[in-house]
Amino acid sequence: MPVKILQGAENAHAYPLLIKQIFASAGRFEPDNQIIYRGEQSFSYSEFTRRVQQLANALKAAGVEAGDTVAVMDWDSHRYLECYFAVPMLGAILHHVNIRLSPEQVAYTMNHAEDKLVLVHDDFLPLADQLAAQLPTVQGYIRLSDGGTPPATPNMSVLGEYESLLAEQSSECDFPDFDENSVATTFYTTGTTGNPKGVYFSHRQLVLHTINMVGMLGSYEGLPLLRSNSVYMPITPMFHVHAWGVPYAAVMLNCTQIYPGRYEPNLLVDLIKQYKVDFSHCVPTILQMLLGCEKGHTTRLDGWKILIGGSALPKGLAKAAMDKGADIYSAYGMSETCPLLTVTHLNKEQRALPAEEQLKYRTLTGVASNLVDLRIEEPSGKPAAHNGSDVGEVTVQTPWLTQGYHKEPAKQEELWEGGRLHTGDVASVHPDGFVEIKDRIKDVIKTGGEWLSSIELEDLISQHPDVAAVAVVGMPDEKWGERPHAMVVASNNELSAGDIQQHLQQFVESGHISKWAVPEHITLVDEIPKTSVGKINKKVIRATLAG
Amino acid sequence: MPVKILQGAENAHAYPLLIKQIFASAGRFEPDNQIIYRGEQSFSYSEFTRRVQQLANALKAAGVEAGDTVAVMDWDSHRYLECYFAVPMLGAILHHVNIRLSPEQVAYTMNHAEDKLVLVHDDFLPLADQLAAQLPTVQGYIRLSDGGTPPATPNMSVLGEYESLLAEQSSECDFPDFDENSVATTFYTTGTTGNPKGVYFSHRQLVLHTINMVGMLGSYEGLPLLRSNSVYMPITPMFHVHAWGVPYAAVMLNCTQIYPGRYEPNLLVDLIKQYKVDFSHCVPTILQMLLGCEKGHTTRLDGWKILIGGSALPKGLAKAAMDKGADIYSAYGMSETCPLLTVTHLNKEQRALPAEEQLKYRTLTGVASNLVDLRIEEPSGKPAAHNGSDVGEVTVQTPWLTQGYHKEPAKQEELWEGGRLHTGDVASVHPDGFVEIKDRIKDVIKTGGEWLSSIELEDLISQHPDVAAVAVVGMPDEKWGERPHAMVVASNNELSAGDIQQHLQQFVESGHISKWAVPEHITLVDEIPKTSVGKINKKVIRATLAG
Repeated sequence: MPVKILQGAENAHAYPLLIKQIFASAGRFEPDNQIIYRGEQSFSYSEFTRRVQQLANALKAAGVEAGDTVAVMDWDSHRYLECYFAVPMLGAILHHVNIRLSPEQVAYTMNHAEDKLVLVHDDFLPLADQLAAQLPTVQGYIRLSDGGTPPATPNMSVLGEYESLLAEQSSECDFPDFDENSVATTFYTTGTTGNPKGVYFSHRQLVLHTINMVGMLGSYEGLPLLRSNSVYMPITPMFHVHAWGVPYAAVMLNCTQIYPGRYEPNLLVDLIKQYKVDFSHCVPTILQMLLGCEKGHTTRLDGWKILIGGSALPKGLAKAAMDKGADIYSAYGMSETCPLLTVTHLNKEQRALPAEEQLKYRTLTGVASNLVDLRIEEPSGKPAAHNGSDVGEVTVQTPWLTQGYHKEPAKQEELWEGGRLHTGDVASVHPDGFVEIKDRIKDVIKTGGEWLSSIELEDLISQHPDVAAVAVVGMPDEKWGERPHAMVVASNNELSAGDIQQHLQQFVESGHISKWAVPEHITLVDEIPKTSVGKINKKVIRATLAG
Repeated sequence: MPVKILQGAENAHAYPLLIKQIFASAGRFEPDNQIIYRGEQSFSYSEFTRRVQQLANALKAAGVEAGDTVAVMDWDSHRYLECYFAVPMLGAILHHVNIRLSPEQVAYTMNHAEDKLVLVHDDFLPLADQLAAQLPTVQGYIRLSDGGTPPATPNMSVLGEYESLLAEQSSECDFPDFDENSVATTFYTTGTTGNPKGVYFSHRQLVLHTINMVGMLGSYEGLPLLRSNSVYMPITPMFHVHAWGVPYAAVMLNCTQIYPGRYEPNLLVDLIKQYKVDFSHCVPTILQMLLGCEKGHTTRLDGWKILIGGSALPKGLAKAAMDKGADIYSAYGMSETCPLLTVTHLNKEQRALPAEEQLKYRTLTGVASNLVDLRIEEPSGKPAAHNGSDVGEVTVQTPWLTQGYHKEPAKQEELWEGGRLHTGDVASVHPDGFVEIKDRIKDVIKTGGEWLSSIELEDLISQHPDVAAVAVVGMPDEKWGERPHAMVVASNNELSAGDIQQHLQQFVESGHISKWAVPEHITLVDEIPKTSVGKINKKVIRATLAG
């Protein structure tokens, strides 16, 4: 298009969007607010800004240059937060190592990302030492310690301990301008087949994700999650999609922040009470763990707003948290999307509903965020209607989507087919904009020529009071193509498959599901197989059920 | 720097930042909220989105193409807001015509911008008709009418009336993607010498300004001005620096919005009361006019937050507004800066102060916004210390600064000297980040080898209870170089020059100003000369005093 672009002054500064600009807001508004680690250490924003600069100088001293990749293996910590800034502000790339992968997969990702320096918590030193010989690109390691004597690491070249290395450095570092499209972060998404795939995000993408999140979670009355006076504690691993990007937003807001280290359910509940945490985010599994632990049973959670994502939030679990006083919101996104795509927003009418009726909106996937263009598409690529009943694959355009899979040319073209990112999720969109994820395309059960959502069935089964957890998968069936099989963890030993089938009859009678949606096969188990990030592992379930 | 930039999928969508993405949020959250014109017309966000698309189709039918310039001459209206979106979303450029300039200057700007189509309110038809023959680039006019018979326009080619043209069009329009650096808006800044200078802003700049403002004014407890449930009414002309960019943010937030048309003080007060307006912004002159009108005298303004900018806010005026119940904040920016640079943010300690003590912070210019890199520079370009006492010229880098003056190569290089935008304002910056504008560089009074701030003197004089308005300028003096001269409007006929000098003695005695800062020359007048945008016109004052 013949739009007009004017040539400005020769010296005009075009202002590339860089993470250092988020950092420039740290302490600008509330310099005395604190960043706290496990209740054991506490740093003001003023200290934080000095430490990030010390870390940057320490990284430079360790040989890190622009374009290098620096890996971190840590629990959620103030140190990890410091790395979120120092590494990319040097023009280097922060590799968030998923420490829940198998050792072979961890090594695969570190070689694939070509990590040069690795910061590793004492808890992961044995793993790192075991892998060291297989990682030719790694030139050195920095120890992250919570105290105590570290295990022996005969195979690793350890440059020093984090705090000692910081202490040697000046707390002033000039961070240069560079291209806003430079890669800032990378991490790996684990499908159920094939090798982990590397996604990556640029400075521009992270700045846009952050400033949008600062507005989205604070300025809308229907979504009052994170403001400058919030006390924020992530319960999503920082290696998992930037802890949903919230740490960057929290720094920009100068919030009080609590980093819980390794997740110990009773400690998490204690931290929430002690610091009056009012905002967290996690996957349903973690919420369940938190409510189910000893302190979870005896502690009220009034004033705690919890944003749930990663997989569908069962109504039963949502209800249990609300009964404890927690305020429930849902969000939707994935590793490829930085991640924010949709989030619960209750409009004026919805906010006026009784809590019980709000539950429906709070457990749907929310509405598209600002700057997110979301639609559902039929297999042909034709947009499906946003009428609440038509279903299609969710495709998106936003400013913060991975532009590809690193060194995976075929897979990245599939991801971006037709110029929109394909999420692999099947959903309907309601006329008021609420997105209702029905299933993963690959988990949809194709039975008798119809699509049956495994997630919808899981939700209905979970509403039985004696069901603690449930997974539904499609299994091959000669007559129908596939049939649903349910795997159930009972909270009451007397629960039987028949009870569940009977429970489902009410939804058949109300017309909510068809008669043929009720599974013939229901297996009671002690535990549902999970992936490294706590999601139901349907691949393993199918293999188990196939026996 | 050898940063890493990865090549993504061939079809990956890079998501240029375009105004259509702000528009996509209109009605996404609160579709039933209203956009109201003078209390006479009201449109839901759903209607607004349809009308903008009708307008875009009408503009296309009128021959508007990408790269063309479309001018608007209107008061603050829903129609102007519709133009804020429809024109740039077509790839065309919206020229905000400053209708307060002299006819010759208006013609100059319209020729300089090469306006092709002009939307003009009935009130400005006589002016437009008078100028028509001098505007060779203009191919047609669209009438904006509040009803009634328009004056005759023998020289203009009027294509039709706005509402009739919209009614003919479909309410669906596909807005294309294009380069985010395309010019979206242009308008003219009026110095006191030379021709008006054209500044311009791209889609990228306006999107960044908007999403930053949505977070800045809503998510910080020290600055709770604009959230989705706000009722917003601008009292800054929409032709003046995008009405400070707030209309774009208000649309993104789906706020209730009141557009007051031509400013009539009693109507403004009525609208504030009728619609429970809780956020407005204006220059001090307008605030004074509003407080001083008949209804202003008799009406409480509790719950009304007012953001003041454009020129320094005298403490006396701030106090008068606060006594009425209004909540006062200050901001700083200029035509070249889109405009947001700084805004009042009260941190936890400052919020705990009594109202009287908060006044100091509320009348300073505030702290730098997120994404704004602000510093003060000595004449050599060396940064001055942010210690509250050193002064220097304010220079900035942000993502939303005009990259030049259109067709003014020399002036734009001066503006961007050294890669930072030079504001021409002299300030000190306090250790807590508060910026205290001392003066325009050209208005600083150089007396006896010292710099004396004309604004500071104005502020002190305004604190005399019988002073209604004041201006101070430097006048040539044989002995001292320059000496301050004050021009004063008294609210009490008995006020004399001696009273003011005596009033200033207290500040000499407290050490706040030097003895030599007290003006020998104080002239009592009926009115202070103002520029077209309501600022004190020091050029005219100097000419008058030189007599």
